[in-house]
Amino acid sequence: MPSSPPAQPLRIALLQSSGRPGSVAANLTVLDEAAGRAAAAGAALLVTSEMFLTGYAIGEGVHRLAESADGDGADAVADIAARHGLGIVYGYPERDGAQVFNSVQLIDAAGARLANYRKTHLFGGFEQEAFVPGQQPVVQAELGGLRVGLMICYDVEFPENVRAHALAGTDLLLVPTAQMHPFQFVAESLVPVRAFESQMYIAYVNRTGPEGEGADAFEFVGLSCLASPDGATRVRGGQGEELLVGEVDPALLSASRETNPYLRDRRPGLYGSLA
Amino acid sequence: MPSSPPAQPLRIALLQSSGRPGSVAANLTVLDEAAGRAAAAGAALLVTSEMFLTGYAIGEGVHRLAESADGDGADAVADIAARHGLGIVYGYPERDGAQVFNSVQLIDAAGARLANYRKTHLFGGFEQEAFVPGQQPVVQAELGGLRVGLMICYDVEFPENVRAHALAGTDLLLVPTAQMHPFQFVAESLVPVRAFESQMYIAYVNRTGPEGEGADAFEFVGLSCLASPDGATRVRGGQGEELLVGEVDPALLSASRETNPYLRDRRPGLYGSLA
Repeated sequence: MPSSPPAQPLRIALLQSSGRPGSVAANLTVLDEAAGRAAAAGAALLVTSEMFLTGYAIGEGVHRLAESADGDGADAVADIAARHGLGIVYGYPERDGAQVFNSVQLIDAAGARLANYRKTHLFGGFEQEAFVPGQQPVVQAELGGLRVGLMICYDVEFPENVRAHALAGTDLLLVPTAQMHPFQFVAESLVPVRAFESQMYIAYVNRTGPEGEGADAFEFVGLSCLASPDGATRVRGGQGEELLVGEVDPALLSASRETNPYLRDRRPGLYGSLA
Repeated sequence: MPSSPPAQPLRIALLQSSGRPGSVAANLTVLDEAAGRAAAAGAALLVTSEMFLTGYAIGEGVHRLAESADGDGADAVADIAARHGLGIVYGYPERDGAQVFNSVQLIDAAGARLANYRKTHLFGGFEQEAFVPGQQPVVQAELGGLRVGLMICYDVEFPENVRAHALAGTDLLLVPTAQMHPFQFVAESLVPVRAFESQMYIAYVNRTGPEGEGADAFEFVGLSCLASPDGATRVRGGQGEELLVGEVDPALLSASRETNPYLRDRRPGLYGSLA
């Protein structure tokens, strides 16, 4: 069952940006500047896009720039988080021995590493060649009285993944993404439906514009959003770079779960074919 | 895996109507007239709303008018289907001994009863008091070279149900519904997302306008639709009574499944908590 939501709304910021693909130093500068603006806007949490630390369509750079969950990039992000006094979720290529995962990490306002998630559903040829799929479907942490969950891009397109989070009590799902043309339907329609059907907030934070070359050239579509469990889209980005700010309201979450008792009305005994 | 789709498009008609709640005879007249128009438009299948045969918000009338799957109402619908030469899906309260189910039945163009489905996910107090929930999640039949599935209203709001159909090869899901204010989000957004995420066509056929009294008074919202697996809404009703006609294109279905390989990319080993 979902955890008891807290009384205070949580303000979060969504950094819709591709940063500077290939340059970790430049991306940390972009992150530092955005964290300052997010903190000034009262946000307690800043969420970036998939692979924000390094860039996404950087070919073998993904392996060259991969680092461990406690690597130099993590230290730099922790420093930014602590300096501005807000949590940060960032995407990066994670090295663990010979393996490289497509990961996101949550670092809290004190600079502590709270949770690390490895993408379980890899999208398309580029990802399936570059990364090893994660094996842990639900990764959570407590933040500001909410149970937050982590997921990456293609993961959210599978209703099973979001449902697993709902059953584990996730209140707010944070989804860094690299969502590309022509799949705008996912950002515009699928993400709000996920929030509604599994009764949680979802922050979906995308990259923007063209990136990469040849077979691995992508056009990212922006359209980041904060979707609420009542089916509304609280915040919606355009196609360019921007910092979006929205609120996660525990009172709305509780009321919506009463009105839409999907988790109570499920009949798991009939769902055996899915697992 | 999905069955191999056939080459020929299937034209289907959606009868967005509440008929005349409480009068089976009047509803059969409405059905007969609509079947004539649907056949004239080239439709091979006509789908009605939930509980079309009797009415939905008719209190204890639901029990009084309930009949077996081979009852007089089924015979009358079979006669209409055979006379106009098209299949019909209709909703009705089904009596089986002391039990009453919220059911839909598919009768083919020769008047043969092909499939009968009992709603597994009952919505709200009225339904949970009036009906016994069905126990068989996936009911299918072959029609016009397509594998069609049956479902009712609230069932489709659970992604697990639609996924179970996709895994069983459903190409076209037929969903008679009684969808009410203020849940328009379901008709407008959730149904197209279901079609996209599980790669099938969905025909969602609603009632219209006010019906019932007191605690069991509802305002049905129309907005019936035919959603395709590419995320498009092929046909969309307004709020009043109307007969909608759309096409199910097997070539589009095959192409969409190649572009959106959700069923291939699923990781059932990670979904154990759902069942």
